[in-house]
Amino acid sequence: MFEVAELGRKLDSEDYDAAVPGLRTELLALQRRVLDADFPVIVLLNGIDGGGRSETANLLHEWMDARHITARAFDRPTDSEKARPPYWRYWMELPPKGKIAVLIGNWYATPLTRHALAEIDDGRLALALSRINDFEASLVADGALLVKLWFHLSAKAHEKRIAKLAKRKETRWRISEGDIRSQKHYDAYRRTAEQALRLTSTAHAPWTVIEGKDRRYREVTVGRHLAHAIGHRLHETREMPSPPRPTPAVADPHTILDTLDLNLGVSRDEYERRLERGQARLNELGQHLRKSERSVTLVFEGWDAAGKGGTIRRLIKALDARFYQVIPVAAPTDEERVHPYLWRFWRRVPRSGRISIYDRSWYGRVLVERVEGFATPAEWMRAYKEINDFEEQLVEHGIILSKFWLHISAEEQLRRFREREATPWKRHKITEEDWRNREKWSLYEVAANEMIGRTSTACAPWTLVEAQSKHFARVKVLETLCDQLEAALIPTKKNGRAK
Amino acid sequence: MFEVAELGRKLDSEDYDAAVPGLRTELLALQRRVLDADFPVIVLLNGIDGGGRSETANLLHEWMDARHITARAFDRPTDSEKARPPYWRYWMELPPKGKIAVLIGNWYATPLTRHALAEIDDGRLALALSRINDFEASLVADGALLVKLWFHLSAKAHEKRIAKLAKRKETRWRISEGDIRSQKHYDAYRRTAEQALRLTSTAHAPWTVIEGKDRRYREVTVGRHLAHAIGHRLHETREMPSPPRPTPAVADPHTILDTLDLNLGVSRDEYERRLERGQARLNELGQHLRKSERSVTLVFEGWDAAGKGGTIRRLIKALDARFYQVIPVAAPTDEERVHPYLWRFWRRVPRSGRISIYDRSWYGRVLVERVEGFATPAEWMRAYKEINDFEEQLVEHGIILSKFWLHISAEEQLRRFREREATPWKRHKITEEDWRNREKWSLYEVAANEMIGRTSTACAPWTLVEAQSKHFARVKVLETLCDQLEAALIPTKKNGRAK
Repeated sequence: MFEVAELGRKLDSEDYDAAVPGLRTELLALQRRVLDADFPVIVLLNGIDGGGRSETANLLHEWMDARHITARAFDRPTDSEKARPPYWRYWMELPPKGKIAVLIGNWYATPLTRHALAEIDDGRLALALSRINDFEASLVADGALLVKLWFHLSAKAHEKRIAKLAKRKETRWRISEGDIRSQKHYDAYRRTAEQALRLTSTAHAPWTVIEGKDRRYREVTVGRHLAHAIGHRLHETREMPSPPRPTPAVADPHTILDTLDLNLGVSRDEYERRLERGQARLNELGQHLRKSERSVTLVFEGWDAAGKGGTIRRLIKALDARFYQVIPVAAPTDEERVHPYLWRFWRRVPRSGRISIYDRSWYGRVLVERVEGFATPAEWMRAYKEINDFEEQLVEHGIILSKFWLHISAEEQLRRFREREATPWKRHKITEEDWRNREKWSLYEVAANEMIGRTSTACAPWTLVEAQSKHFARVKVLETLCDQLEAALIPTKKNGRAK
Repeated sequence: MFEVAELGRKLDSEDYDAAVPGLRTELLALQRRVLDADFPVIVLLNGIDGGGRSETANLLHEWMDARHITARAFDRPTDSEKARPPYWRYWMELPPKGKIAVLIGNWYATPLTRHALAEIDDGRLALALSRINDFEASLVADGALLVKLWFHLSAKAHEKRIAKLAKRKETRWRISEGDIRSQKHYDAYRRTAEQALRLTSTAHAPWTVIEGKDRRYREVTVGRHLAHAIGHRLHETREMPSPPRPTPAVADPHTILDTLDLNLGVSRDEYERRLERGQARLNELGQHLRKSERSVTLVFEGWDAAGKGGTIRRLIKALDARFYQVIPVAAPTDEERVHPYLWRFWRRVPRSGRISIYDRSWYGRVLVERVEGFATPAEWMRAYKEINDFEEQLVEHGIILSKFWLHISAEEQLRRFREREATPWKRHKITEEDWRNREKWSLYEVAANEMIGRTSTACAPWTLVEAQSKHFARVKVLETLCDQLEAALIPTKKNGRAK
């Protein structure tokens, strides 16, 4: 695979000077057209140290309109990055539609380096690469153009470069830690890279290996490759079978939501007793949480007027205001709209020790957006896997994730809507939209059942809450949450985290 | 994920009788339309023993036109299957376009069972699932409709079923080994399945979990699901960005093929001496091979008139005719045309102890089919990964794979063409087509360089052969092959197989 990049290809300065002006003009023109297009361009620069990754980032910055291109080199994670799942920092650098991002030492760097240094085995490398393939597939499905460039140097070229830098004091500082390491472990790096490139050269995001030795050759090759890829993406599309859609349920749909006993309730006395006890427990657990390295993410979904707000208010009464945050999810902002769907949730992933409470959440994609047609079937169908992958990363990072669906009957909703309308200080809570959504009750029901089936995973199960009685719902949520926190935070009870 | 299939859903016989006639009519009508469509339907039936997989296969056979639907249950591999890479038997059951295949215990069975029984760890499971995802993605890209049904039983329902069968002598035989095992390890199976379903529920081939307990409910659900999926596939397409294409090389293309020194030659004497010695060595190695469990696959590609045939004839002179096979690759047959591209090569994967010599090969996809436009860019772009995955499976199975590119200059080709035309007994070897291909020399050159770069992997590297001198080429191929066989077959020389 790398033999083709060990040919000593060169461009003399005459050819270089002849090629560059036209290339720069072309790249600028293409960049202007990308600005109006509805996709971002993500350029990955990877490869051996000294192969020309940072020089290439600088070059693209210089050749193109710097206002619409960003470059970022990822090194060791900062403290703030370490406090989030590993992919968080990559999500944060994803460019919006119309823009170009150049990423050095991106999601490939850590697994490849660790494998080359024999810190992880082939199985773990494959796991990491399969996560990468899923992530990239999802970016591409979202429209992104992914240009993956691998800069290569032969063992000899690599050695020569370092020897040359070492000769003079003025250049010796340029030899990085990475240089030394990649010289020492050159063969291992090469084997790892070969394996990784093969497994991640997918049809939609293949690698291109570029010989890194000659600066002029490298620059013109990168420029031409990028221009070619953007030009192709601007023009060519093809017809594809649209992804399958869930089948409507069989007649007499006895769904998982139908199994809930909406008659469940508690007496006023019991409610107050259990609420008080639960809040005391939660407060104590909150203190444990702060001492731990963990954080908590709560998701509340459910029908309009099912009592999400009231339940959340009962929870936060027990919490220290410095450590929790309630996040009501409404329509995305302009900035959020030009990023992949989950971006707006990634950006809010909290640091350790915090509690985030979502009043509605990323599940909007497979609920309201599905039913109202804001997302295409292709978009919400792939959202199930994207959401499962997202939540898996949260849980892997040690975040305690708890998801509640508050369930009421259609009749109860009607009663609550009417009550809201009749009560002056509640009237603002009910809008035309609520009435319109209500008409689509059965479509929402199908979507909710589908969602629970596809996203109730072992690492992030749904808790279904019978919410016909508000009191019952509040107590159930509070006590379930306390149980889950206890299981996760207090190991002495032999309560190991669910796997 | 499985909670939604533990609801005890039932259909009474009245509803069942009302639903089935319409459903069967619909399925038959859809099946007729698939016959004329250009895609196959692959139905995977998986899940717990006793969940209704074989009953469902029988049912579909009964409900649909049996001439155009096949069912196959995979059990332990037969001897003939064990003599090939594990996926061979799945490839052999892939339906042609227009047909429906129902596969039980397919590519999911082995990794899932082994993981549930703790024979492989999470990393190995992930590796297996990532191979599955690649395989399925390639089937879907090729047009196939993949319908993946998972039959589930709760622990209680599973236990009940076995207890009921055990009660009477007449039904006791129905309890399978698998039943006993899945009862004993129910929780482990469930956890494994949960993990696997989550990782392989891709947007284009999602799983559907079906409650297996009630026969009537299950049958109608399967029927409706299949009808829905086929109906959707017949109608809906969407526009997708076409996959990226390789960038034309930078001016002054100093390619890997350009590095070959076409002046290399050998004297007549030396040729004969080395040929004879090489053939003796090869013959001896052939005997080693037969004693080993290994087989050999040789691939010859190169320019028209580069000397592939002559070289192959020198090799087989040293081999026992019972153990080798020369496979000239021409245009695909009708049957091959309605299967995925690599199917015709999978079907020829030899048993152990054999030598297969390909005169042209699966690389046609990225050479002639690319240049002549017989394959779309989307098809040949994804072929690189498909070929690498294919070859990896061959090598993993212990097949010794050796690939030769025979290289000559355009002038030398012209000389040989003219010579062939001038020689009465060689004239048949040169056709109009050869002259036409010659006009596209530079396009073939780009394709060949691209091919070498993308498919010269650590586990299956290309050997580039300077073939301007036929003698030199023959000797180089023969000696390289002997070295490779020796390295692979004779461990005493400390020659472990390249990894």
